[in-house]
Amino acid sequence: MQPMKTLNLKLNEKSYPIYIGRDLLLQADFLSKHISGRQVMIVSNTKVAPLYLAKVEALLGGFSVKNVILPDGEKYKNLETLNLIFDALLAEKFDRTCTLIALGGGVIGDMTGFAAASYQRGVNFVQIPTTLLATVDSSVGGKTGVNHALGKNMIGAFHQPQCVLIDINTLDTLEARQYAAGMAEVIKYGLLGNAKFLQFLQQNMPALMARDKDLLAQAIYQSCADKAEIVATDELESGRRVLLNLGHTFGHALENTLGYGKLLHGEAIAIGMLMAAKLSMLEGHLSADEVAQVADLCKKADLPCEINSKIKITDFTKAMLVDKKSVAGKMRLILLKKLGQAFITNDYQPDNLHKIIEEFL
Amino acid sequence: MQPMKTLNLKLNEKSYPIYIGRDLLLQADFLSKHISGRQVMIVSNTKVAPLYLAKVEALLGGFSVKNVILPDGEKYKNLETLNLIFDALLAEKFDRTCTLIALGGGVIGDMTGFAAASYQRGVNFVQIPTTLLATVDSSVGGKTGVNHALGKNMIGAFHQPQCVLIDINTLDTLEARQYAAGMAEVIKYGLLGNAKFLQFLQQNMPALMARDKDLLAQAIYQSCADKAEIVATDELESGRRVLLNLGHTFGHALENTLGYGKLLHGEAIAIGMLMAAKLSMLEGHLSADEVAQVADLCKKADLPCEINSKIKITDFTKAMLVDKKSVAGKMRLILLKKLGQAFITNDYQPDNLHKIIEEFL
Repeated sequence: MQPMKTLNLKLNEKSYPIYIGRDLLLQADFLSKHISGRQVMIVSNTKVAPLYLAKVEALLGGFSVKNVILPDGEKYKNLETLNLIFDALLAEKFDRTCTLIALGGGVIGDMTGFAAASYQRGVNFVQIPTTLLATVDSSVGGKTGVNHALGKNMIGAFHQPQCVLIDINTLDTLEARQYAAGMAEVIKYGLLGNAKFLQFLQQNMPALMARDKDLLAQAIYQSCADKAEIVATDELESGRRVLLNLGHTFGHALENTLGYGKLLHGEAIAIGMLMAAKLSMLEGHLSADEVAQVADLCKKADLPCEINSKIKITDFTKAMLVDKKSVAGKMRLILLKKLGQAFITNDYQPDNLHKIIEEFL
Repeated sequence: MQPMKTLNLKLNEKSYPIYIGRDLLLQADFLSKHISGRQVMIVSNTKVAPLYLAKVEALLGGFSVKNVILPDGEKYKNLETLNLIFDALLAEKFDRTCTLIALGGGVIGDMTGFAAASYQRGVNFVQIPTTLLATVDSSVGGKTGVNHALGKNMIGAFHQPQCVLIDINTLDTLEARQYAAGMAEVIKYGLLGNAKFLQFLQQNMPALMARDKDLLAQAIYQSCADKAEIVATDELESGRRVLLNLGHTFGHALENTLGYGKLLHGEAIAIGMLMAAKLSMLEGHLSADEVAQVADLCKKADLPCEINSKIKITDFTKAMLVDKKSVAGKMRLILLKKLGQAFITNDYQPDNLHKIIEEFL
């Protein structure tokens, strides 16, 4: 067996472990000790289920295990698809003591988590993320939900899992574009609050993109550790948890105006972070060289630095305003004071924001 | 102005007041002091809005007030109708600081509460119940949700309102059948834990059915006080809050097998309580005279004591099993030790349960 690391997300009675290692899907005890009832529903999609469903089922001898396989893709992250999970739970007469297992990427994790939050007003769930993005972002921290035609993640709940099980080996099957998109969120942790980690990423990005397992385990561990530390101090995002949305107000607006699925979430976030960095430069916080470093790191991670489609500025601005970081019509943004230090502000020149939007659209 | 009573539901940082009185919809301060943001969405239905929407809007000078009017009836209590609330919130660019107001009966209260729990992962809401059932039951305690084709209230959240505003005058417009259905839940509080209140109801039922305002205010106050006391000790229904479901496992199964809307919720609960009482008699807890007292009180409240439709026993039993009080397939029931004292048990003769179901179906 390979070495395994455990992180603890500390949230009083809702604390839970995040297991990170290779071959975790071959070791039943990590999973089974976090399941209290007898009924288990594995939620996965048409892409991930053929690869890992049988492996997870094999860990669950002694439980009554059912599954529901959803269509794959962000465009299915809606109330209608969510209802398929409820259909399955009710058809199988699942009660309040049941556990849901999210087996897949961020879409599956977010939907399964919200289904768990809402089924009979709340049941347990476990996250088994199988994409890089999900391992470092959506599986940790308890944000769950679905999209609405008028905005991303607009319907959801804060609902913490019983544990997060990250088997690095599952990333082997991830296609290159999805892998790169996940790396955008890894870079985000460096940019927003961890200059040392940013240097590590700058030094090791080629090896990370070659999926060096040891470096990858380190990068995932550090990303989860940074996220866990922030979530532990601000579970419900009333303060500094907002920093985790670096690049997201721009990114969500891109996804929204382009139509979900055109850009992957991580790709939109990469462009969004670059927009935030350039705005931070216009606001006098970053140098041109520092902005170039951000662009360079994104390029090394095979991430797009520009939009290859036409978007109307008014549509984009509208989409930004509906984003949830907007409070009573006044748009707060997350900017960079320096590389490795983000801050939340609505004290910026609207002209500068406009320039950035014009430059990118 | 008429005398007004305030109850406090004590839940640490989630505590909130329940105001009970006449003419409360003429006094702006009760409502406005519980609204922190600027954006207010009033959720009502086609029946209640023409009667009270303008009155509530008149209390909200200084706020940006919008409304969404849903179709009326239990059959619309589903995810599809819920989404109409999200549509309205997003179309009007409501942010996280907004407040939703539920203006209507239990269906409106439950759906508005769940919309508030889920919109942007949680915003504030206020309950203004306009049916007797909603005043004494669904508006207090934070249970919110929608139905699923396979079970009632199967999708939802615990989400407490900022306040509950009960203007007794709104019950003037309630039709007789709805009023009687609400009285079933009032009787429930007497039966499950308050023998003194049960006597009060036995003595005053004719006057209560004639809608004597002072007696009605007393009955609503006592019902809310009993519920608030129980919820305060067990918000998430891990223990004695289950007692509030007296008659509900039977009642939900009746509603489910007959099809929602055939029986009103309160009517189903009345029959369910009678079934629970008769089973309690077979189990040796109640006397025949005590069961007759329960039936008599329901009759005086114009509530049905029998089902006037044909239901298959197997369908009914299936529906009971899916009810959320069932844990891992073993059905717990709430029975009466004596009048005014309910208890939770799975220690009863299955034969006796079967006899009761046969007798009623």
